[in-house]
Amino acid sequence: MKRPRVVIAGAGFGGLTCARALKKTPVEVLLVDRNNYHLFTPLLYQVASALLDPGEIARPVRQLIRPLPNADFLQASITGVDFAARRLLTDHGPIAYDYLVLATGAQSDYFGNPALARHSLGLKELDEGLAVRNRILSQFEASRWTSDSATRRMLLTFAIAGGGPTGVEMAGAVSELIRLVLRKDYRDLDTNEVRVVLIEAAPYVLGAFQPSLREAARRSLERKGIEVMLNSKVEAVTESSLRLAGGTEIPTGMVIWTAGVRASEIGKAAGVQLARQARIKVDPTLQIPGHPVVFAIGDLAGARQHAMDGEALLPMLIPVAMQAGKHVGACISELVAQGGARAFRYQDPGIMATIGRNSAVAQIGWVHLSGFLGWVTWLTVHLVKVISFRSRLVVLINWAWEYLFYDRPIRIIVRARQ
Amino acid sequence: MKRPRVVIAGAGFGGLTCARALKKTPVEVLLVDRNNYHLFTPLLYQVASALLDPGEIARPVRQLIRPLPNADFLQASITGVDFAARRLLTDHGPIAYDYLVLATGAQSDYFGNPALARHSLGLKELDEGLAVRNRILSQFEASRWTSDSATRRMLLTFAIAGGGPTGVEMAGAVSELIRLVLRKDYRDLDTNEVRVVLIEAAPYVLGAFQPSLREAARRSLERKGIEVMLNSKVEAVTESSLRLAGGTEIPTGMVIWTAGVRASEIGKAAGVQLARQARIKVDPTLQIPGHPVVFAIGDLAGARQHAMDGEALLPMLIPVAMQAGKHVGACISELVAQGGARAFRYQDPGIMATIGRNSAVAQIGWVHLSGFLGWVTWLTVHLVKVISFRSRLVVLINWAWEYLFYDRPIRIIVRARQ
Repeated sequence: MKRPRVVIAGAGFGGLTCARALKKTPVEVLLVDRNNYHLFTPLLYQVASALLDPGEIARPVRQLIRPLPNADFLQASITGVDFAARRLLTDHGPIAYDYLVLATGAQSDYFGNPALARHSLGLKELDEGLAVRNRILSQFEASRWTSDSATRRMLLTFAIAGGGPTGVEMAGAVSELIRLVLRKDYRDLDTNEVRVVLIEAAPYVLGAFQPSLREAARRSLERKGIEVMLNSKVEAVTESSLRLAGGTEIPTGMVIWTAGVRASEIGKAAGVQLARQARIKVDPTLQIPGHPVVFAIGDLAGARQHAMDGEALLPMLIPVAMQAGKHVGACISELVAQGGARAFRYQDPGIMATIGRNSAVAQIGWVHLSGFLGWVTWLTVHLVKVISFRSRLVVLINWAWEYLFYDRPIRIIVRARQ
Repeated sequence: MKRPRVVIAGAGFGGLTCARALKKTPVEVLLVDRNNYHLFTPLLYQVASALLDPGEIARPVRQLIRPLPNADFLQASITGVDFAARRLLTDHGPIAYDYLVLATGAQSDYFGNPALARHSLGLKELDEGLAVRNRILSQFEASRWTSDSATRRMLLTFAIAGGGPTGVEMAGAVSELIRLVLRKDYRDLDTNEVRVVLIEAAPYVLGAFQPSLREAARRSLERKGIEVMLNSKVEAVTESSLRLAGGTEIPTGMVIWTAGVRASEIGKAAGVQLARQARIKVDPTLQIPGHPVVFAIGDLAGARQHAMDGEALLPMLIPVAMQAGKHVGACISELVAQGGARAFRYQDPGIMATIGRNSAVAQIGWVHLSGFLGWVTWLTVHLVKVISFRSRLVVLINWAWEYLFYDRPIRIIVRARQ
C-alpha cells in the first residue's frame, strides 16, 4: 500500500520541526519552500549589521533533512491550495497531498502604504538582511562625496520603525556598528552628523516584556546613543525623509521597517477564513476548519491559547512554531493510525532580546534578567541553537572577534547578480 | 606646503600594495574603487562552489588602510582620465591628482559575442562568484521538477570554458561539490545524468605550466570525472546549449566563462595606446608614455619583461601586480624627492593551481610538484595569504570541515536585494 504523503509548505522552524516529528511515521514527507535554505532568523540582524555572513545563519534544507529517511524537498513558490483536489499549488505546478501543513510564516506589513514599502527596507528575509547591510554601508560611502552638511546628516540618519525585539536589536547593532567600527573607518567622520532613531507607537519598547525590563531596555538603548521616540507613529516615508503622525519630519535616507508584520499570502490565496494579521483561523487542533487533513502552524496560524485567555492569538515566536510543528507531526501520526487530532497547548519557555554589547533582557517565568547577566543568557541560548556545529564555531569566532577587537568584519557591499 | 596627492584607481592587489609602499612618503594617498572591498580572488571559485562565504575572501578597503595614516578611500566607478587637467573622472565627479596610478585590473572578454556574454557567467567579481553558486544550485533544484531525462541532462551539464587556472580550479570544485556533497542531498539523483565539461582551445590545460604538470592536471581532472575537451573552441552559447567550432553541440543550461580576459575599460576611456588584451602600453618604468605622472600596473598594464625576451607581456598574475605596485610606490617616492623613475623588473615566485581534494600542481623555479604534495603546498600558501587572521581561522575551519566531512556548507541560493 502506498504511504500517505504529507506536504509541508515552508521550511522554517515550524515546517522543519513538523518534518522531524514525522521521522518514524509511515508517511512520505515533502517539504516545499521558495528558498533552498532554512534561516536562523534570530541572528538575521547580525548579517544586516555586518557581523555574520549568510552561510552562518542559513543552512540547506536538503542537508537538514538528510537524517529523515522519509523526507524530500522541492524548491517552489507556493501560490495557493486546491482543497477539493487535495493539491498544493506552486509556480512549478501542483503537488498532490494526503495531509497538508501550511507553515509559510509571516512578512513585513506596510499597512497598504506603497510609498512606505518602496522607501523602507524590511528585515524578515535573508536577502533583506543583505540589502540592509549594503544600504547602511552605502549611505556612509555616499556621505563622503558631499560637502553639504544637511545632506550628510540626512544620509547618516538611520531610522528604525518598530520597538519590538527586531527593532531594538537592529537599533542596538546599527549603533554599535557605527560607534565602535565605522568611526575608525571614517577618520574625518563628525559623529554629531550621525543619528540612530528608534520609533515606536506605544509608550514603551518591547511591549511583550514586563515594565521593568522595557524600561531597562530603553535606558540601555539611550546609553548607546540611540534616540528612542515613543508614542510616535510613522506616517509617511520618502527617499530622504520620514514624517511622524503629528507632523514632525526627520530627514533620513534609510528607514528599516519592523513595525508591522502579517502572515504570508497563502491564507488569502487559499480562500480560508482569516484572523488578525491575515493569520489563518484554526481549530484548537490547528486544523483548518472544514479541512480536517490541512493544518496551519507558526506565524501563519491564528492559534489561540484557549486554556489561558481564550481570545488573544499566540505570539509570532519561534517556540510557538516549533511546538506547533511537533504537535501537528504527532496529530498526523495519530490520524494515519486511524486516531484523532488533539488540541494544541503552548508552553511558554520565556522571551529575550539583546540590545548589544553586554546588554540584553530576558524574561523566563518569574526570572527577569537585564544588563550583562541577560546578555550572557542571550549569548548562550543563541549560540547553542545555531543550526550546525560548524556554524557555531564560526559564529563564536565572529562574536569573540567583535567583542575583543570592536570589529564587525563583514562590512562589504556586495550584490549578487542573477 | 601642501603634500602632493597620489590617486590610486583600483584597490586590488596592485593598488593596495602601492598605497602601502607610500606609507612613509610625504604624499596624500587616495584609493578609489567601485567596490568598498578588496577581494582575495584566488579563492573566489570556493565562494562559487559553496565552500566559503563572501566575508571570508573580501575585506573592507577602509579596514585595510587603517594602518596607513596618509591614505583615504572613496567608492566610485572610474570613467576616464583628463590628463590635461590632471583629474581622474568618476561617476561621482572628478578627482584631482598630482600622481595617478591606474590599477583597475581585468574583466572577462567575450570577444564581442553578445550571446556569449548573456548566456554565460564570468568569474572575476565577487557578485559573479555568488551568481555562479546560485546558478549551480538552482540548476539542481530545477532538475527535480522535470520528468524528461533529456531536459534533466541539459540542466545538469555544467560547462566550463577555458583551461587556465580559474577554469581548472572551478571544474575541480564543481565536480567535488556534485560528487561528494550534492549526491547526498539528492538521493534520487542519477549521476549518469550529470556532466562537468572543461573546454580548452589549446591541446593542453594550464598552458603556463611545464608539460609534465599540464599532463598531471589533466589526468587528475579526468579522475574526478570531468570531461576534458582539448583542441575545442566555444563558438556559440544559447540558453540550453553550447556549440563548438566544428559543429559539436553540448546541451547545457550553464556555461562558466574563463576562456577570455582583457583589461578593464579605463585604458580605452582614457584614450591611451593599448597593447594586446586592451592593456595599457607602458614604459619600462610603468609610466604611461607622454604622461610622466601617470602609471599603470597589474592586469591593466601591458608591461614587458625587457630583460628576458623583450616582447611577451607579463602574465596577469597577483605577484606581478603586487611587485609593480611596490615598484610604483618607490618611483613616486623618488619623484616626490626630485629623483627619477627606475625600470620595473619582475621576479617570478612560481605558479600553482589546485584541481581539488589532494591534488594541485605547483611550479616554483626548478621545483615541480603535483598530487598531494602540490596540494599541501597550495593550501599552505593560500591559507597564509588570506587577508586577515579572523578569515584565516574561518577559512581553516571551512576547509577542515569539507576535508573531514565531505561537505560544502554554503549551499544556499541567496540573492541580495538592492
